[in-house]
Amino acid sequence: MSLIVQKYGGTSVANVDRIKNVAARIKAFWQQGHKMVVVVSARSGVTNDLVARARALHPMPDEREMDMLLAVGEQETIALLSMALHAIGVPACSRTGAQAGIHTDSLHTRARIARITGGDIPARLDEGKVVIVAGFQGVSSESEITTLGRGGSDLTAIAVSAAIKADLCQIYTDVDGVYTADPRLVLNARKLTEISYEEMLELASSGSKVMQARSVEFAQKYNVPFEVRSSFNEKPGTLVKNNAKTMEEAVISGVALDRSQTRVTVGDIPDNAATTAAIFNALGEAGVSVDMIIKNLGANGRANLTFSVGTEQFPHAEKVIAAALREIGSGTVRASGEVAKLSIVGVGMISHPGVAGVLFNALASVGANCDLITTSEIKIAVAIAPEKADAAVRAVHEAFSLHTHR
Amino acid sequence: MSLIVQKYGGTSVANVDRIKNVAARIKAFWQQGHKMVVVVSARSGVTNDLVARARALHPMPDEREMDMLLAVGEQETIALLSMALHAIGVPACSRTGAQAGIHTDSLHTRARIARITGGDIPARLDEGKVVIVAGFQGVSSESEITTLGRGGSDLTAIAVSAAIKADLCQIYTDVDGVYTADPRLVLNARKLTEISYEEMLELASSGSKVMQARSVEFAQKYNVPFEVRSSFNEKPGTLVKNNAKTMEEAVISGVALDRSQTRVTVGDIPDNAATTAAIFNALGEAGVSVDMIIKNLGANGRANLTFSVGTEQFPHAEKVIAAALREIGSGTVRASGEVAKLSIVGVGMISHPGVAGVLFNALASVGANCDLITTSEIKIAVAIAPEKADAAVRAVHEAFSLHTHR
Repeated sequence: MSLIVQKYGGTSVANVDRIKNVAARIKAFWQQGHKMVVVVSARSGVTNDLVARARALHPMPDEREMDMLLAVGEQETIALLSMALHAIGVPACSRTGAQAGIHTDSLHTRARIARITGGDIPARLDEGKVVIVAGFQGVSSESEITTLGRGGSDLTAIAVSAAIKADLCQIYTDVDGVYTADPRLVLNARKLTEISYEEMLELASSGSKVMQARSVEFAQKYNVPFEVRSSFNEKPGTLVKNNAKTMEEAVISGVALDRSQTRVTVGDIPDNAATTAAIFNALGEAGVSVDMIIKNLGANGRANLTFSVGTEQFPHAEKVIAAALREIGSGTVRASGEVAKLSIVGVGMISHPGVAGVLFNALASVGANCDLITTSEIKIAVAIAPEKADAAVRAVHEAFSLHTHR
Repeated sequence: MSLIVQKYGGTSVANVDRIKNVAARIKAFWQQGHKMVVVVSARSGVTNDLVARARALHPMPDEREMDMLLAVGEQETIALLSMALHAIGVPACSRTGAQAGIHTDSLHTRARIARITGGDIPARLDEGKVVIVAGFQGVSSESEITTLGRGGSDLTAIAVSAAIKADLCQIYTDVDGVYTADPRLVLNARKLTEISYEEMLELASSGSKVMQARSVEFAQKYNVPFEVRSSFNEKPGTLVKNNAKTMEEAVISGVALDRSQTRVTVGDIPDNAATTAAIFNALGEAGVSVDMIIKNLGANGRANLTFSVGTEQFPHAEKVIAAALREIGSGTVRASGEVAKLSIVGVGMISHPGVAGVLFNALASVGANCDLITTSEIKIAVAIAPEKADAAVRAVHEAFSLHTHR
């Protein structure tokens, strides 16, 4: 008898039949005596339809009105799922973000959670009810409807779990869990039973599409254990928690690939810290994430900076840098090619000095040269040529024997 | 420079193009310097789609969840209309029923307005903004989303008008205004320039589809003048207000027809007031409206009651009466045929004793016999055979010279 928060994404509740399936799954847990809170997204396609209608009326819709519009999607799903539960004899009631006490700042379309009270969720649970909460949405201190941006429903589930001190949060998605590598790429990739928040965070920021980093960070901050699992089968997923069991011999947990990186070169700038800081401050203020930075000194005493940014962020980054260079008074900026970022992640890495050697041997075995490299205590990431990426991931997975159970 | 509340129904905002048309219409008023509040319904079809999804999940969806679901329709429209106004340079902001301070009781799917504060509407109007309010919805004292039932958006518009002391409330619909008779039936039917609340109320309860009686009652109670007009052309509509101008010679204002009435006969009951009261109390408690009652005494000292109910209410009424008769210990109930209810309405009627004579002469001229008759100070209604109804309406319209301007 636990207090469980479950989250179902848009594909899991896409239509009436899938909503019935989710209701049946919830009932099975509820019948075991668990107290259940369920967070749901909009039915898949609904949000896109709403956005299309908005754009047909205005090229850049007002963000406050966009939130008013988009919050509609989850409000529909919570009512429908409640009805589906009633139909199979499960007492249930729905709650909007505001009713669930999800208080945010006023940054419409990308609001941050300020505090979460849980509203009357504990009282309804004590009555034996399943409480269905609209994901993705909250309410500002001005009583305006806000939305949390990408990955918002996962964040709602983890924040609600923290607020009501849930025993477990289950994130149902269209993947079975967290794998040692993308199973479509590496046939013997293995699903991890457990993984630490730190590793999950590094994977999230390394191109793994399973979850947004902000949800993992929130879970880590409030120590909310959560399980990533599939809503289309009954297999156990991957548990993300503090002090995940890692055997001594497990050096790394997984290898991730982010194909959509652009290598940027900023050339011919003064070789001093102030210049470097000016460029990266400008990028940071503009919300552009930068990775794998190297600095070269040219023969003329001028410096070059090379780093990677997400390809979709490059046009924005280029403008920001160009403006910074005008301030500096010299310098050029250009995209110097697409790169793939391959990352290995694992808490065991820190006590195994040979990790980098194994990695570079594996890369060399498939002819994947790399110049940009970045490391943290639990991650090494390298930029390689996109056409070598698939072979490199397989070679690295093999080199660390990730297919064998740790 | 007036304070104007406008209400647009679902067909007026059915799609992106129609929303643009409505926005252009609002802009024209706004450019004349008027302060504008606009109440909108869900896009036509949206509510039906939501109801269909709900019924696919539960044969009788929970009413609280139904309100959670249906409120979505208007919330979408207010956001889209705001965006459409922004796109043509009109400052606008949307407000849900709760944000507009529309407080209701907790009777989900048919909530009644308890009080209306208007929220921050006056402040936004003072900033020059057009305020777009979701029709049909409110909020209960438990912070639950409620809906107002049929005609709810009209009611929202009139209630908001009362709360903010609007100079005029315009109800945009798919008819041009209030006519002396249904223009599809009587070719020379004339649109009325003005009509009193009392007459509008009698027309509303006499089969005129223009507006629900509850909205007219609310307008009358709070003395809100309103205009019924079309959103598809620029013609002035019909103004409904206190002390509408009625010339001395105007005896009646219009003739209405309700084709969907069933004549009910309750036979073989004791001839006393307690029995009659028991039957009508039971119907009243069940929400069945009864009209045109007659009572006959049989040869055996037993009584028969005959009256009309809306045909769609008959199955429900029959069950209610049967239950009442079981209590009474005797009696039968049956439908004794479909009837059409023809009503003439007019405040001038009270000072013109010859009205009934003119009416019955006109009915006789087309062979429309009637047995059930009901009268009020401003209305006479008769039940006639449905196949005589069209001819009867034309004959009555002609007999009272309703086509001539009063």
